Amino acid sequence: MERIFSGIQPTGIPHLGNYLGAIESWVRLQDEHDTVLYSIVDLHSITIPQDPAILRQSILDMTAALLACGINPEKSILFQQSQVSEHTQLNWILTCMVRLPRLQHLHQWKAKTAKQKHNETVGLLTYPVLQAADILSYKSTHVPVGEDQIQHMELVQDLAQGFNKKYGEFFPVPKSILTSLKKVKSLRDPSSKMSKSDPDKLATVRITDSPEEIVQKFRKAVTDFTSEVTYDPASRAGVSNMVAIHAAVTGLTTEEVVRRSAGIDTAHYKLMVADAVIEKFAPIKTEIEKLKMDKEHLEKVLRTGSAKAKELAYPVLQEVKKLVGIL
Amino acid sequence: MERIFSGIQPTGIPHLGNYLGAIESWVRLQDEHDTVLYSIVDLHSITIPQDPAILRQSILDMTAALLACGINPEKSILFQQSQVSEHTQLNWILTCMVRLPRLQHLHQWKAKTAKQKHNETVGLLTYPVLQAADILSYKSTHVPVGEDQIQHMELVQDLAQGFNKKYGEFFPVPKSILTSLKKVKSLRDPSSKMSKSDPDKLATVRITDSPEEIVQKFRKAVTDFTSEVTYDPASRAGVSNMVAIHAAVTGLTTEEVVRRSAGIDTAHYKLMVADAVIEKFAPIKTEIEKLKMDKEHLEKVLRTGSAKAKELAYPVLQEVKKLVGIL
Repeated sequence: MERIFSGIQPTGIPHLGNYLGAIESWVRLQDEHDTVLYSIVDLHSITIPQDPAILRQSILDMTAALLACGINPEKSILFQQSQVSEHTQLNWILTCMVRLPRLQHLHQWKAKTAKQKHNETVGLLTYPVLQAADILSYKSTHVPVGEDQIQHMELVQDLAQGFNKKYGEFFPVPKSILTSLKKVKSLRDPSSKMSKSDPDKLATVRITDSPEEIVQKFRKAVTDFTSEVTYDPASRAGVSNMVAIHAAVTGLTTEEVVRRSAGIDTAHYKLMVADAVIEKFAPIKTEIEKLKMDKEHLEKVLRTGSAKAKELAYPVLQEVKKLVGIL
Repeated sequence: MERIFSGIQPTGIPHLGNYLGAIESWVRLQDEHDTVLYSIVDLHSITIPQDPAILRQSILDMTAALLACGINPEKSILFQQSQVSEHTQLNWILTCMVRLPRLQHLHQWKAKTAKQKHNETVGLLTYPVLQAADILSYKSTHVPVGEDQIQHMELVQDLAQGFNKKYGEFFPVPKSILTSLKKVKSLRDPSSKMSKSDPDKLATVRITDSPEEIVQKFRKAVTDFTSEVTYDPASRAGVSNMVAIHAAVTGLTTEEVVRRSAGIDTAHYKLMVADAVIEKFAPIKTEIEKLKMDKEHLEKVLRTGSAKAKELAYPVLQEVKKLVGIL
């Protein structure tokens, strides 16, 4: 039986990169599979310092955004990680099965320690084990991930296999589903990913930005001095990012988008892309604003989803406890 | 309001050192304080490899032994750690507040990595954080500990203070209660502690050993070539260990024990101590054997205790989640 699991951090309102890189494919997957779980992984977000009031709001904002983007709680289980205690319980059991060097050699940890001067928390070291618990709590078979998570998925697979080897065949070894990899780049530096935490406010388009903000950000998007519109990510990263976004929000291929833009210079083309983005997100923006008015509804969606998730995770954890000898 | 918390690993039947070093004082503390929690910390025991069937039995054996020694579920909350999910939930939150070097500098970790050639699990590194969660889940004010746990208690205190500093005054900073420190030594090497895992089976007296086994172990106890009975741990560790055990099981002072042993040589004295130990543990041994026959009763004691513990831990964790911003 197929079970799909994926998680998203409660960063508040998603940006274009979140939408095209993950959320859009989530909406598709819930139509294609029976059991699909989407978790707002708040326990991962506290591996770095958070303001409690902002975090609380961001959980609700992300819930509103996911619903507005088309995640349907009748088709998928949308829930808040910290409301299902099985995650941290299984996390501890898995933590007792992994060796320290295995975590210290993960690329992301090495990059983060280098940047933060070895002052990062133990949570930032061990969160890939919690990710494994997130996935294995549901005996998930498939996990939609981005390329940057492939090494962490190998850890999940190793932990599932290590558990099975020690206690007998129990966990399916979950497979990665590489989502379409529409990697959206920063509008200000097309060599880096679009990111919520970019200090340059013009670099990132949130899906609730006003039409004026979107036009301004695309107008100032960094391209090059060639006026023609072509798709060539290696040598023309800026313009190609525009083409990729344009194709993604219209559902056309990049070739088709380029063909239709013949004779338009990049300055005008950027405004065309801005218009397409505005058109794509207008109904979502309206829906988010409506949903955000009803905090109780959002909280109820999460509570209901978390109860459904717990129904699946509880019997799995009971079995795990029996196998380990603590039940 | 005072709240006492302490934990013991499910090592099965306790030995003389467990009894005199911890359990005896636990029995006293439950009469002296209103809220006293004793946890069989099975999640700590899995930081090293365990055989599941033996672990399951050891949890029940330890429960039987504690009841037989006088832990009274009407006076204290006796429960199994893994049955109260608040421990691992708070553990994750605290894991996100501690820095890696803080754990790597703990004496016990350094000693264990040296011995195990850096192949130990992450659980063995991070279990002092789980200990902090064990204690803080109940807003405990006092923790009976042995001297070897003082450094870990400092970590617990630092985590409580760190949390209070960030989120406002919430956790009492728990104080250590140094239990009477009747450190029982190995009967075969009086320079080291009595330990369950001692490879020399004659070194350790379990409280359910038969009278014959106890006599044999004391007969072969390592002392020195002076036949007189004196109490001088620094220069006569072996005989002094006999005197200390004798005093502990009879309730007399070491001086009184030495006075009463005047004129008896150490060979005969060892048999006197063996007799005193047999007499002390005979009723406990009988009670353990009776309790072990009724597995369902033992399981019910743990379930009832765990439900009581959860009643205390649940509202604390809810408050913590609100303060952190995930509720």
